[in-house]
Amino acid sequence: MTAQDRPLGALATRTEIAAGRLTATEATEALIARISDLEPELRAWVHVDAEGARADAAALDAGPNRGPLHGVALGVKDLFAAAGLPWRSGSPIWKDRIAGFDAAPVALARRAGAIVLGKTVTTEFAGYKPSQTRNPVAPGRTPGGSSSGSAAAVAAGMVPLAFGTQTSGSVIRPASFCGVVGFKPSFDLIEPYGVTALARSFDTVGLFARDVPDVAFGIEALTGLALPLPTLAQAPCPMTLFRSAAWSKAEPDLLRAWDAFEADLIATGAQLHDTLPPSFVRALDPVLELHARIMAVEASEALAYEAEIAPDLLSAGLRAQIEEGRAVPPAQRHADRLALTRLRARAVSDLDPSAVWLTPSSCGAAPDFDASTGDPAFNRTWSLLGLPSCSVPLLSDDAGRPIGVQVVGAMGNDHGVLATANWLMQRLAGL
Amino acid sequence: MTAQDRPLGALATRTEIAAGRLTATEATEALIARISDLEPELRAWVHVDAEGARADAAALDAGPNRGPLHGVALGVKDLFAAAGLPWRSGSPIWKDRIAGFDAAPVALARRAGAIVLGKTVTTEFAGYKPSQTRNPVAPGRTPGGSSSGSAAAVAAGMVPLAFGTQTSGSVIRPASFCGVVGFKPSFDLIEPYGVTALARSFDTVGLFARDVPDVAFGIEALTGLALPLPTLAQAPCPMTLFRSAAWSKAEPDLLRAWDAFEADLIATGAQLHDTLPPSFVRALDPVLELHARIMAVEASEALAYEAEIAPDLLSAGLRAQIEEGRAVPPAQRHADRLALTRLRARAVSDLDPSAVWLTPSSCGAAPDFDASTGDPAFNRTWSLLGLPSCSVPLLSDDAGRPIGVQVVGAMGNDHGVLATANWLMQRLAGL
Repeated sequence: MTAQDRPLGALATRTEIAAGRLTATEATEALIARISDLEPELRAWVHVDAEGARADAAALDAGPNRGPLHGVALGVKDLFAAAGLPWRSGSPIWKDRIAGFDAAPVALARRAGAIVLGKTVTTEFAGYKPSQTRNPVAPGRTPGGSSSGSAAAVAAGMVPLAFGTQTSGSVIRPASFCGVVGFKPSFDLIEPYGVTALARSFDTVGLFARDVPDVAFGIEALTGLALPLPTLAQAPCPMTLFRSAAWSKAEPDLLRAWDAFEADLIATGAQLHDTLPPSFVRALDPVLELHARIMAVEASEALAYEAEIAPDLLSAGLRAQIEEGRAVPPAQRHADRLALTRLRARAVSDLDPSAVWLTPSSCGAAPDFDASTGDPAFNRTWSLLGLPSCSVPLLSDDAGRPIGVQVVGAMGNDHGVLATANWLMQRLAGL
Repeated sequence: MTAQDRPLGALATRTEIAAGRLTATEATEALIARISDLEPELRAWVHVDAEGARADAAALDAGPNRGPLHGVALGVKDLFAAAGLPWRSGSPIWKDRIAGFDAAPVALARRAGAIVLGKTVTTEFAGYKPSQTRNPVAPGRTPGGSSSGSAAAVAAGMVPLAFGTQTSGSVIRPASFCGVVGFKPSFDLIEPYGVTALARSFDTVGLFARDVPDVAFGIEALTGLALPLPTLAQAPCPMTLFRSAAWSKAEPDLLRAWDAFEADLIATGAQLHDTLPPSFVRALDPVLELHARIMAVEASEALAYEAEIAPDLLSAGLRAQIEEGRAVPPAQRHADRLALTRLRARAVSDLDPSAVWLTPSSCGAAPDFDASTGDPAFNRTWSLLGLPSCSVPLLSDDAGRPIGVQVVGAMGNDHGVLATANWLMQRLAGL
């Protein structure tokens, strides 16, 4: 599998179709062929809707331009409802469920002209149990979770864009492990109605693509946000490097790669600014535990129906997380909610709205396939705060397996995060 | 219809069943008979699941105590999924939909032993278009919306407890108009997964009952919060009277009733405290517009699928609200989200956690049936801030139609709000 034989990305597909050099049908057929070749090994898809995608492509080819994503194929994490397609949410409890409607993000994508190519594998209810999907760029390793199939399908060139969700680290971590770009927007930027809930205070719809311009293009098409990415000599936002409280979990290969990255960044002449005030960083101390506890409480309630009708069909790990959530006393729960409200407010009041900072996307490269989907320690804080973050494939371990650099920004600074991610790729990729 | 012939309330049902003086089957049959008598006139139900309720009651009667709600019947607003029952969300788009699962609150209620008696009428997607439900205590008037059926069914004694939801004023307003107790807990107290979304930053699951102890009992059973309501000589929380920026919309009958209420309250010897700092009240100035704008934006996205597949089946009012939401520029949207985060943080930082305040539940008594479901002006602020509020039937217009007093409290002060509501009913009802 080489980059050369991969089908076009999202922006290139749009450009070629608009210029009359490609039809939506041709673009779709190239992807279906690619999936046929690679899927038996990768197992990134729950269901490929080849016939539906062909019909949609033919309808688009026969009609006027439908929107910015006209003819662009989309992989949809199987946590999202998509009308007429399986909706299993990674659980045997829902193995026969067919969705009767489109989740809001799917409806918004279709309105913009996107073609839903199928449903990609999620871990069980977006939790920590590994799925069957393989990592296309790091053989024998996990693709990460929970958006395993979306990250792997994009990395393998099976689809140019794919939806994921992040509750702790489910977009940034698989992007890191699969060497693609993953973007978790500001909380609330993309409406999640129709997406199976895990922990609604954190659940955020995100997007995978092979490069930053494709991610920005997809987000712009879904939200109407203007996200221009001009080529820039200087970094577009005041930024700093931030190792964070998760640093104790950084693996040796990450430590080496990060040191080199910092040196390369300085060598570009990039100015570093003090974008994270020490008092704010100190306020983050309880965040890792707080995030895990609220997530357990909310999961125990969001999955109340499944836990009632089919507890034996939940994995032992998820059952334990649900039990942990149920055991949190009401007073602790209340204190946690107030702490969450206060921390999110501080993230608004204490940070420059244009600030970004750079931190690892994961503790290292992808762990062994059978071990776990990886640790979200570098992601939980930004999921709890609801801040935009983007993983770009700039680092690698000694065997060449990818590790992402995570660009995080102040609330609502989605454009700054993507512009910085794009600038980093232009300046540092391939060094 | 008199109070004497109404079936038992929730706590009384639980007590009688626990004492062996009543079976769940008998309790259920009494409610089914009541519904048979009154439903042709009131039209509070989308679907009464008499057979399912009878089967559940028989199973409960044959088994051990299942939980605090063992044998207590529940009306479920048709915005919530309940497995095997219609799930129309008040829209012709979903007239044939049958839910394949229980929404989380329904699952939590069933786990506690509740019997789902059926689905109650909601306005279209919980919006402002009047439903067909009649007001059982104010003939010719609206029962309010959007939880029209739940409020009317509880007021008519068809069911002791019923779920509602509030996005702007959809629990407190119908409770006010129907003369029942309506409680909207703190945002996030009850998980809403499986409830059709209207505006997720505000959508809150609430409960109706005929008295405060029944509401507290229901919330305790659903959440595990301890909500004891002892008889008290003095008010349980520091409280104040607050007319709010909505006061200009107060109708003449409310003005008279409120003056009398204030005098009666003072006459009890109740101490008033300065629980709402003037700087906090000033910060609330933009709230009414902010709430309406965020609600329009979020509704335009939550209903993206319906707007795409069947725009002609949406009411003109809802279509206009969706268009209004789509027209909000991204920069305004972003500013609104930051303003929301800041205001919620101020509600945590500026208020005594034990504070409550009293304000009207609605602008007056129920408007004419054909006019509207009423104005949520007195409710929007507390919905936006996510604060707990409870409507108690203490006031009336000159024709004797009910108007509620709304007890609102600081974030997480659900117990204080219910204890104050209970104290008010004990001290002032029937004066």
